[in-house]
Amino acid sequence: MNDSERFKWEAGEAAARLVRSGDLVGLGSGSTVRYFLEALGRELAAGKLVDVSGVPTSKRTEDLARALGIPLVELPAEGVDLAVDGADEISPALDAIKGLGGALAREKIVAAAAHRFVLVADGSKRVERLGERAPVPVEVLSFGWKRTAALLQSLGCEPVLRGGVIEPFATDNGNLVLDCVLEAGFDAPAFAAAADGLPGVLGHGLFLGMAHEALVAGSGGVISLRSPQSP
Amino acid sequence: MNDSERFKWEAGEAAARLVRSGDLVGLGSGSTVRYFLEALGRELAAGKLVDVSGVPTSKRTEDLARALGIPLVELPAEGVDLAVDGADEISPALDAIKGLGGALAREKIVAAAAHRFVLVADGSKRVERLGERAPVPVEVLSFGWKRTAALLQSLGCEPVLRGGVIEPFATDNGNLVLDCVLEAGFDAPAFAAAADGLPGVLGHGLFLGMAHEALVAGSGGVISLRSPQSP
Repeated sequence: MNDSERFKWEAGEAAARLVRSGDLVGLGSGSTVRYFLEALGRELAAGKLVDVSGVPTSKRTEDLARALGIPLVELPAEGVDLAVDGADEISPALDAIKGLGGALAREKIVAAAAHRFVLVADGSKRVERLGERAPVPVEVLSFGWKRTAALLQSLGCEPVLRGGVIEPFATDNGNLVLDCVLEAGFDAPAFAAAADGLPGVLGHGLFLGMAHEALVAGSGGVISLRSPQSP
Repeated sequence: MNDSERFKWEAGEAAARLVRSGDLVGLGSGSTVRYFLEALGRELAAGKLVDVSGVPTSKRTEDLARALGIPLVELPAEGVDLAVDGADEISPALDAIKGLGGALAREKIVAAAAHRFVLVADGSKRVERLGERAPVPVEVLSFGWKRTAALLQSLGCEPVLRGGVIEPFATDNGNLVLDCVLEAGFDAPAFAAAADGLPGVLGHGLFLGMAHEALVAGSGGVISLRSPQSP
């Protein structure tokens, strides 16, 4: 296991220690969450945690959780106790860009429904300003997507159809993803609100003011970053 | 043909007279648009209009337009010259509630892409304040829909799952519709912005500041209402 994988493993293990017996847990997606799921499944199998259920945010997570023996339920109206998910970029204020995995719409539904939303990542995901490395993924209807891309461009970004026009990537919801390249330090709240208001846009990968905590693993171990909105 | 049908027919015929040869036309959905499509097909067949293509906003409109010999294309990045669509409520400012037909997401994409967006309706659709008669349809992902319904409720509306839980209505995009009952005179811009920002919401039936003109047919004939944003 190289350093990067070890850091992801450490972050996932640390997140599993946040789960309490009886919790309903939102299960994010991606390579770091995978270690969280494995730790959670292990604790359940060992009987150290009981009466824990999960709400998966992607088909891949659903399959993995099922294989690990984590009971799954649909997202109830009351939301979940805790949600754990990865991120592609995390700012000092714990704003995040997510969605390189393509599950952003479901991930955001679950994150917004969580009493406590925790990001897990290795240290390479920390940035000073959003947009330094990752594009903002925007999920759009395939109907009229070229027009939607033009509207996104008018918001100041460079949208790229994920997968290309010949064989475009399709989300679990059957939609397309436009990866929008923005300048580092762009006005994230303004872009988020404008994109939310565009017809044809289902959602985007900006998770602003949502995370309560981030567990970030690096050579110094796992550190916990708290946000002002932390419960 | 009863009065209501005759009014719809008159509005549809009047809208067809707005089409010019060479136009790319957004084709709305619903019972009034049907008469527009029939008039458009007739003019094309008679050679009075040439080089006109349409962008359909629903499968039903697509089938009907095809049967009427109206050439169809995908929505291009440049948008359309003219879009014609029905409405469930039209306010004096030409704000509208649409989507009882369930095609609201595609209808809004096309309406927003139109150089000129024209509503067609019989006089019964005119209201003093939005919400007097029609609920606001909100298209949502089936994933987590109970949570999304709870979030909509917190915005002050009473969401009802269209079709019921046993056999819910599905949009052309495979999503669900929550019909949100609001008080007449509710704050439509605030509700629209809040709903747009909810994860799980694809779009809603509030068309605010979008229509340039409304062709409304009643016992006094067809009247044209213009909005401040009319080109």
